[in-house]
This record gives sequence, C-alpha cells and structure tokens, in this order.
Amino acid sequence: MSSSQFRAPVPAVIETDALVVGAGPVGLFQVFELGLQGIAAHLVDVLPEPGGQCVALYPDKTIYDIPGVPVCSGRELTHKLLRQIAPFSPVFHFEQQVSTLAQAPDGRWLVTTQAGLQPCQQFLTRTLFIAAGVGAFVPKELKIDGLAAFLGLQLFYQAQPPSAFAGKQVLIVGGEDAAVANAIALADNGAAQASSVMLVHRRDVLQASSSDLGRFVALREAGHIQFQAGQITGIDCANRQLRGVLVNTPDDHTLNLPLDVLLVCQGISPKLGPLAQWGLAMQRKQLCVSTETFATSAPGIFAVGDVVTYPGKKKLLVCGFHEATLAAFAAAKLIRPSQSEVLQYTTSSALLRQRLGVAPDTNPP
Amino acid sequence: MSSSQFRAPVPAVIETDALVVGAGPVGLFQVFELGLQGIAAHLVDVLPEPGGQCVALYPDKTIYDIPGVPVCSGRELTHKLLRQIAPFSPVFHFEQQVSTLAQAPDGRWLVTTQAGLQPCQQFLTRTLFIAAGVGAFVPKELKIDGLAAFLGLQLFYQAQPPSAFAGKQVLIVGGEDAAVANAIALADNGAAQASSVMLVHRRDVLQASSSDLGRFVALREAGHIQFQAGQITGIDCANRQLRGVLVNTPDDHTLNLPLDVLLVCQGISPKLGPLAQWGLAMQRKQLCVSTETFATSAPGIFAVGDVVTYPGKKKLLVCGFHEATLAAFAAAKLIRPSQSEVLQYTTSSALLRQRLGVAPDTNPP
Repeated sequence: MSSSQFRAPVPAVIETDALVVGAGPVGLFQVFELGLQGIAAHLVDVLPEPGGQCVALYPDKTIYDIPGVPVCSGRELTHKLLRQIAPFSPVFHFEQQVSTLAQAPDGRWLVTTQAGLQPCQQFLTRTLFIAAGVGAFVPKELKIDGLAAFLGLQLFYQAQPPSAFAGKQVLIVGGEDAAVANAIALADNGAAQASSVMLVHRRDVLQASSSDLGRFVALREAGHIQFQAGQITGIDCANRQLRGVLVNTPDDHTLNLPLDVLLVCQGISPKLGPLAQWGLAMQRKQLCVSTETFATSAPGIFAVGDVVTYPGKKKLLVCGFHEATLAAFAAAKLIRPSQSEVLQYTTSSALLRQRLGVAPDTNPP
Repeated sequence: MSSSQFRAPVPAVIETDALVVGAGPVGLFQVFELGLQGIAAHLVDVLPEPGGQCVALYPDKTIYDIPGVPVCSGRELTHKLLRQIAPFSPVFHFEQQVSTLAQAPDGRWLVTTQAGLQPCQQFLTRTLFIAAGVGAFVPKELKIDGLAAFLGLQLFYQAQPPSAFAGKQVLIVGGEDAAVANAIALADNGAAQASSVMLVHRRDVLQASSSDLGRFVALREAGHIQFQAGQITGIDCANRQLRGVLVNTPDDHTLNLPLDVLLVCQGISPKLGPLAQWGLAMQRKQLCVSTETFATSAPGIFAVGDVVTYPGKKKLLVCGFHEATLAAFAAAKLIRPSQSEVLQYTTSSALLRQRLGVAPDTNPP
C-alpha cells in the first residue's frame, strides 16, 4: 500500500499557459492584457467573487483616479473590468488560496490551492502572475495558545451549513455583521437548531444592520441567544477536546464558558499567506520585481499590483494596470520565444480585434 | 536705443508650478495627477483642441485597452479625461509649439512658445512635463531647395484669413480635405476673392467629403479653380520674390506655374521639433527617463507617454498614465521638499476629495 493513499485526494491537474493569483482589478486587467497577447488564463481568489478589496472592503466608495473614469464605485469598476475581459473567457476559481509551489522538470510551475484546510486544485502553468494585492482576505485569527489544534474540528472561521451545529453548544466570537447574522441563523434554525448560542464580544456594543440587530435583541430576550461581554484569554480542554473558553469580563472576572463549537467571526484581514514562503525575493513583505518585465526572481513568475515593490512604486490601481501590461508582454515572449514582438493597437490591429471578438472597423456605438 | 527694441514683442511671463507640453490623453491625465498633489498646471499644445493624436488622427476609432473602459472612441476618451480634470481648472494654450528652454538663476525653467513663426507665450515654471507623444502635429513640409526663405511671406502651411489673399494668384498643393476646402474658400469668397486659384496634386484623384468635391467640381467647371496634376520639383524666383513653381506632370513635361502665394496643405505629421534640441538625454529620438520618477536628465523636467524611452517601455496609454502618476509624485517632492509623502486614496482621503471638489463621503450617483 503506497503512502499516497493516506493523503487527501489530489484533484486532476489543470494545465494552462497562465495562472493569475488574485481577482482584484489588477488581476482582472492582467487577464485582459494576456488575452490581447493571445494567452488564456485561469484565476484563483480566496474571496467568493471578483473585485478583491474593491468589492470586499469598499464596494460603494467612489474612486476618482482611474484614467478615463471620472468617478465609479469599487463594484462598478469591477463590473467594467469583467465586461472588458469577457472576450477572453477566463476561468475563475473562487474561495481557494494558493498554497504550494513547485517547479516541474520542464520548467512549468505546479501550484496547488486549498480551501480552508482541504487541498483543492492543482495547476501546471507556464507563467504565473501574482496579483495578490495586500494579501488574501482571510478571517482574522483568534490567537490563543493551543486553540489552532481544533481548527476544522471544533474551531471554525467560516459559517458552516446550519445543520452542522444542530444540537451543539455554539459560542460565537465577534461584534459585527457576520457574528450577529450567524448567531441569529443558529438560534433560529427550526429542527436543526443549536442547543445553545452564545455571542462573546469585548464590549456590549454590536455593529450590524438595524433589522439584524432587532432580530438579535428579540432572540436574546426570548432566551435563544446569550450574550457575554469580555475578552477570550484561554481555553479549557481535556482529552483532546475543547470544552470551553476562559473569558475576562469588563469587571475583571474570569468565566469559563462551556462549548462544543467555537465560531470566530472577527472579520477578514489581508494576509500574504503561503506565497510569502515560496522563496521569491522579497523586501518588507513585498515581492521584488523588474520594472522592465515585472518578473520576480523566479523565471516565469511575474508579480503586479500592491504586492510588489520597486523604486518609486505606488500602491495605486493606475500603476498596477501598467505593471500587468508589461508583464503580459514579457510572458508572451517567454511562451512564444520565436515570435518577434510588434506593438499593436486595439484601434487598428486586425489581430487584436479578432482576439477581442470585434469587427476590424467597428465604430463606437 | 537698446537692441531689444528690434526684437519681436515678448509677451508677459506666466509663472506656474507646472507646465505640461502636450494635451493628449497622457498630458491631460498628468494634469489630473498634479491636481491630486495640489499642483495647478498650464498646458501647451500645437493643435487647436485637446486629445492629441486620439482626436487629430483617430477621433472615431474604437479603443479597447483602457482599464475599466471596455470600449470608447478617441474623442470619447478625451471627453472623459476633460471631465476628470475639470476640478483642477487647467489653463490651455492651443496652437502653440514650445520653442526655447532656458534655466533661470533660481532653477525654474523659462519656456517660450511660438505660433507659426511668431513668439507667443513665455512660462516660468518650477516643473515641466513633456507629454509630447510622437511629437507636435505640424503641417507636412514641402521640401524644395530655397523655398523655406519665403515662409510667412509667400509660403504658408495654414489657411490665412480669406482677405489675406484677395486679388492674389494662389497655388495650393495637396489632394485631401484641407487642400480642397481651401481652394473652395479662396475661389468663392465674394469681393475678397483670389485673382486665381490653382490646385496642384500629384494625381487627378482628390480625397474630400462628397459635398466639398461637388462644390470643387462646379467651381472648376465654371473656371474659378484650375487643377494641375503633377509633382513640384523647383521654384522660380527673382529679386527675392517667389514667382512660380516648376511642376513635373504625369506625362513628364515641366510647367512653370506662376503664383503670388503658395499654400501647402499636405496634411499633418508629428515632429519632435525644437524640444529635441533642448539638450535632454535622448535615445532614438526619445527622452531617457528614470522609471522611479520619470525625470529626464534635467532637474525639474519630467517626460511621460510615447515621447519617452526606458527598458521595457511600450507606447500604450495605460503606460503613459502610470508614468504621469509617478512623475506627479516626484514633482510634488520637488515643489514641497519639506512635506513628507503619504500615499492617499481618492476613496478615503478628505484632502484629495477636497481637491476634487467632492464631499468626503460621496457615494456613486
């Protein structure tokens, strides 16, 4: 019996010319510039939808400094970019984080992704574009000694199917929308209801929509949700089981709150994650790139957008778009070394217009 | 009597923090990025309107590779950029070409412009941004030995007020819209009419709107316009007067066609012009710049867009927009050396939003 049978099942490998890590505005525009070069791309993002922090953090805030777009919201910009890249039919892989990187004997890069703790997808790619921004938006960790061992068993950072916690004592940590919404969902879940739902937040002030807050108060008054103000300072475990958490209350008492399941909903924050361990040259947590090609220190691996550093670098979308453009030219040279490079324009090039799926002489609508 | 009294009158000097040469898309966006830095700018362009070659050469052609703008025409892009820079109220100086450059004792740059042969405007600027693209779009020259001496006297490259040629024998060179339109205007000008109008083009095929062509044919049939196919090969002059041009006809005869005025309308083509003589470091007719600051070899003079070269440079708008952004940051450092640089975002910065004239928390319409 080979040892591989003990590993988690490894999915089939997707072979591609280009893999883009990060589906924020720069990752999306990377797909566009690759498409103009005749290179199709897959995209991986840890978030459930495209747009990166533009959509995750400020979907409705107005952006004024995209050239030729006097004003738009983060969500609108994302929609415009999705429309722009539609001709190139990129394949999206959401809710996955890149995990490991290895070079195949033929020089291609084998990238694996994970979803939570599970291995998820393997890509064998000729070129890799890291457009990871300030990092993958992952849930903020609850840092308590010994707690991490229970991840996926009794500790969760993401809502699970409601039935998963039926009949369990659930303790939720957090004070914003997601924490409140999860408390409501678990306390008001018919037959699949949790046996108890307790919300712990450092102070007795919650931040959520007024309708959710109203529902929360009603469930709390009816005794379906308990609330405790305080800071989690430790855990109570025995026989490899998490039995409770120690909570320091505002009046400086320590409580031991029993639980079967600990659901941490403290919001998301960016984390460079595994790719910081890939051995690429870095400076102050950013990838070092050439301003000529936006290549990293590894052949075939490019980096663009807020994740990179070079003399003069500004973390602005307008700069990321330029970086993605030059990276696409450099990738095309790598993928088709024999083809001489000719700068073509979308206004006039029959080839580019064919790739875009528009008629050679189309005039604006 | 000082010698200065013999010079052409010199206009008052405009003092400014920033002067942008070229009002194409990159020059316009340069104004925007300067505006975000709190720096007001003047713009100079040889063309009569903003947009550069986007408007002069392909106003209706569709552009697909502006990030976040899936499709637009050159004219539309120009309008969007004009709307975007409106909050910063730039001052435009059209139909002027930059001419001379000199450094003042305090380090500022004295730039003079000319309109045709006339000195036009003087600027004393702390920073200068050359966004001249492939050059100033100037009329294509008619290159005949000895002809240039008559420029502004009997030789013209631009239409003059109709009365200027009243009673004169006018010979027009060219076969496209402007040549045809000028022939019509001069032959059908009431009392201020030219005494004769002849159009010379290398072959008997003209390219103009059908209405202009119809009018042209009617005037030709009525004897108000003459047409001669042929190539101008020389001039006939005596006593410092241009008396005629020698024309080689398709059947290889040489004609001497008499004239008082020669109006050359052979279209426009880009020419780097005087700025190529400013002593800035160049390579293959392009300005060498730092990819960190987009500074040229002269302190305070930046260059952006198609006029520059650096390793990896692509002549694309998306790259010019990035270059203009970093140049604006570098200029701000030069103009306000004591102020520490903080990267701010238009989504969240109260200062940037104040400069843009929008409320701190404006949401998209």
